[in-house]
Amino acid sequence: MPADWITTLDTPFLLIEKSKYLRNIERLYSRVDALGSVVRPHLKTLRSIEAARYLLKQSDSPATVSTLAEAESFAAAGYTNLLYAVGIAPHKLPRVAALMSKGVNIHILLDSERQADAVAAFGKEHRLKFSVFIEVDCDGHRGGLPPDSDALPDLARIIEKSGSTLTGLLAHAGESYNCRTEDAILAAARAECAAIKTAGERLRTHGYACPVLSVGATPTAHFADDLNGISEVRAGVFTTFDLVMKNVGVCRLEDIAISVVATVIGHNREKGWVFIDAGWMALSRDRGTAPQSEDYGYGLVCNLNGEPYENLLVTTTNQEHGIITLPPQSAFEVDNFPVGSRVRILPNHACATAAMHPQYHVLSEDGQGHELWQRIVGW
Amino acid sequence: MPADWITTLDTPFLLIEKSKYLRNIERLYSRVDALGSVVRPHLKTLRSIEAARYLLKQSDSPATVSTLAEAESFAAAGYTNLLYAVGIAPHKLPRVAALMSKGVNIHILLDSERQADAVAAFGKEHRLKFSVFIEVDCDGHRGGLPPDSDALPDLARIIEKSGSTLTGLLAHAGESYNCRTEDAILAAARAECAAIKTAGERLRTHGYACPVLSVGATPTAHFADDLNGISEVRAGVFTTFDLVMKNVGVCRLEDIAISVVATVIGHNREKGWVFIDAGWMALSRDRGTAPQSEDYGYGLVCNLNGEPYENLLVTTTNQEHGIITLPPQSAFEVDNFPVGSRVRILPNHACATAAMHPQYHVLSEDGQGHELWQRIVGW
Repeated sequence: MPADWITTLDTPFLLIEKSKYLRNIERLYSRVDALGSVVRPHLKTLRSIEAARYLLKQSDSPATVSTLAEAESFAAAGYTNLLYAVGIAPHKLPRVAALMSKGVNIHILLDSERQADAVAAFGKEHRLKFSVFIEVDCDGHRGGLPPDSDALPDLARIIEKSGSTLTGLLAHAGESYNCRTEDAILAAARAECAAIKTAGERLRTHGYACPVLSVGATPTAHFADDLNGISEVRAGVFTTFDLVMKNVGVCRLEDIAISVVATVIGHNREKGWVFIDAGWMALSRDRGTAPQSEDYGYGLVCNLNGEPYENLLVTTTNQEHGIITLPPQSAFEVDNFPVGSRVRILPNHACATAAMHPQYHVLSEDGQGHELWQRIVGW
Repeated sequence: MPADWITTLDTPFLLIEKSKYLRNIERLYSRVDALGSVVRPHLKTLRSIEAARYLLKQSDSPATVSTLAEAESFAAAGYTNLLYAVGIAPHKLPRVAALMSKGVNIHILLDSERQADAVAAFGKEHRLKFSVFIEVDCDGHRGGLPPDSDALPDLARIIEKSGSTLTGLLAHAGESYNCRTEDAILAAARAECAAIKTAGERLRTHGYACPVLSVGATPTAHFADDLNGISEVRAGVFTTFDLVMKNVGVCRLEDIAISVVATVIGHNREKGWVFIDAGWMALSRDRGTAPQSEDYGYGLVCNLNGEPYENLLVTTTNQEHGIITLPPQSAFEVDNFPVGSRVRILPNHACATAAMHPQYHVLSEDGQGHELWQRIVGW
């Protein structure tokens, strides 16, 4: 039986099952711990102080953020070890400096001479020592310098000459989201570690301590088998998982801790359509499962206990309408979903769906209680 | 030259050009006025009190909303004539009733006996007369009853027998977003009007006054050539337009009043990639132009004056990264977009992009001033 409040709270709303959330955290943390490294969780998925409490045991536990808005909010909540893992835009340095002046150990990321020069110039002008990571490209996914790039020691020189510190290197195996087999993920994890270790050794040969080697993406974090020499592992979506991660093979459907609760508001009997009050405003426009082995449309429909209906998908979304299409020869007809009844939708991409909600409704571990977690918004 | 604040405000941010915004409003309002009807603007695109001031001249000017959160916020701002144009879920009636008790003339929408029964029962129990619209299906797009459905007079009977009022009928030519020619849009507009007039005449034959016939979608609203007998026209995205509407043929690129300002944060020279700090968090995951005549990726890149670069698109988005891919044989190379420089991105779908931003930065009509409009969030 679902908790009373899940059947009465106004819809649509985002539901997090805390028992699954905590189990997912324990799974990754214990794995990385056993391999001798530590998790620097990426807080961008839920962007929530309340959610982060279960990830960060101490005020100086390492954390990753995707915006300065997050950094400022987590700093205000007392967290002091924050890696801003998006390439720094020079105009953002005053906000970084403001956090440093409050005692926050914020690390910035760069991969170009122009950025290094800007950091050096701002640091000199304001007598500030920034903590800098250089991004290393391990798979051609996005940014970063190849491990054998001559620019690596050049950037290190600019940073350290200006008085700032080259704290470490960062690699992100973003291509691992496209993996189809466990072997492929394991290979991506090994390549991610190999690339950053190669780059780290080169810098140390050049005389830079560069103490921190930071890797991670949710798939590689769960399949890496050797973290020797790797200082920390970043991962974000692992706390809730989603249908994309289920397709990649990192979790099972029953591990997904996030769903959207919606109410049936109408039918088109001829077409076998059930309308719900969760459109793309509640589910997001993310179609991350479209190119994967199993395309879940805009989400997989479950009953209020979170048990999936086989092959029942949200196939279309408008702003505030979702359409569930009953498949031909389905075991269901529209009257199985009367107006006023409720369903839960597992999302394609937890980060994107969570981003549509100003707050999250959390089912306590006892399966009844109701907590409210707030989302940090803006940039 | 762009206004100073556009070159210095932290990025990413959503920019609205007020001169275009007002011109788009004037275009539709004068057209509908000349055809003898009135616009009931759909406020879901920007969901902003400040934005609505230019659409609603009086406190009782007709308006459309997509959520009760909007209805409550616009009511608190003094607006009293609000059509909640999503099929009513029975559990939402207490919030509707609360608005009615404050003197708000809120209209609800339904198309099923179960909804009509719920409205009748709640109305009787609480001695409330709801103002009800029945949804009419004009093109098989989503919900509503066919104009010849016997359920139409059945629902009218349930509503009026319970003491509530059948205020009118609503049709939405949602399929017009898929039109490819002006002739096709005109045909959709005529079909939308014909369907609702047929349904209205049938109800009047059955003795129901059903005074209001409400039609509309942005394409049909701009191409309808005969609004005789049509009480009001709804449209939403027309205030800002977007790339989807440009492709449908309703506006030109230079009419688009909404864009996202982003900063260049890196390059991949080998691949011709320019990284910006606007990912799908700022642009949305909407790929509405993908099936259209011209696919704009995640948006069309412009300079800070809003002038588009030919064929320059945001081709990929991650959460806080956008990737602009320079086409082969492009007139540009990555050094034309140095780290720290800024671009503007025209979005596929204004409703989806606006939904990612808690506030909008508005360029005043003088081309210099800066206004801030707040977005209403949640449900």
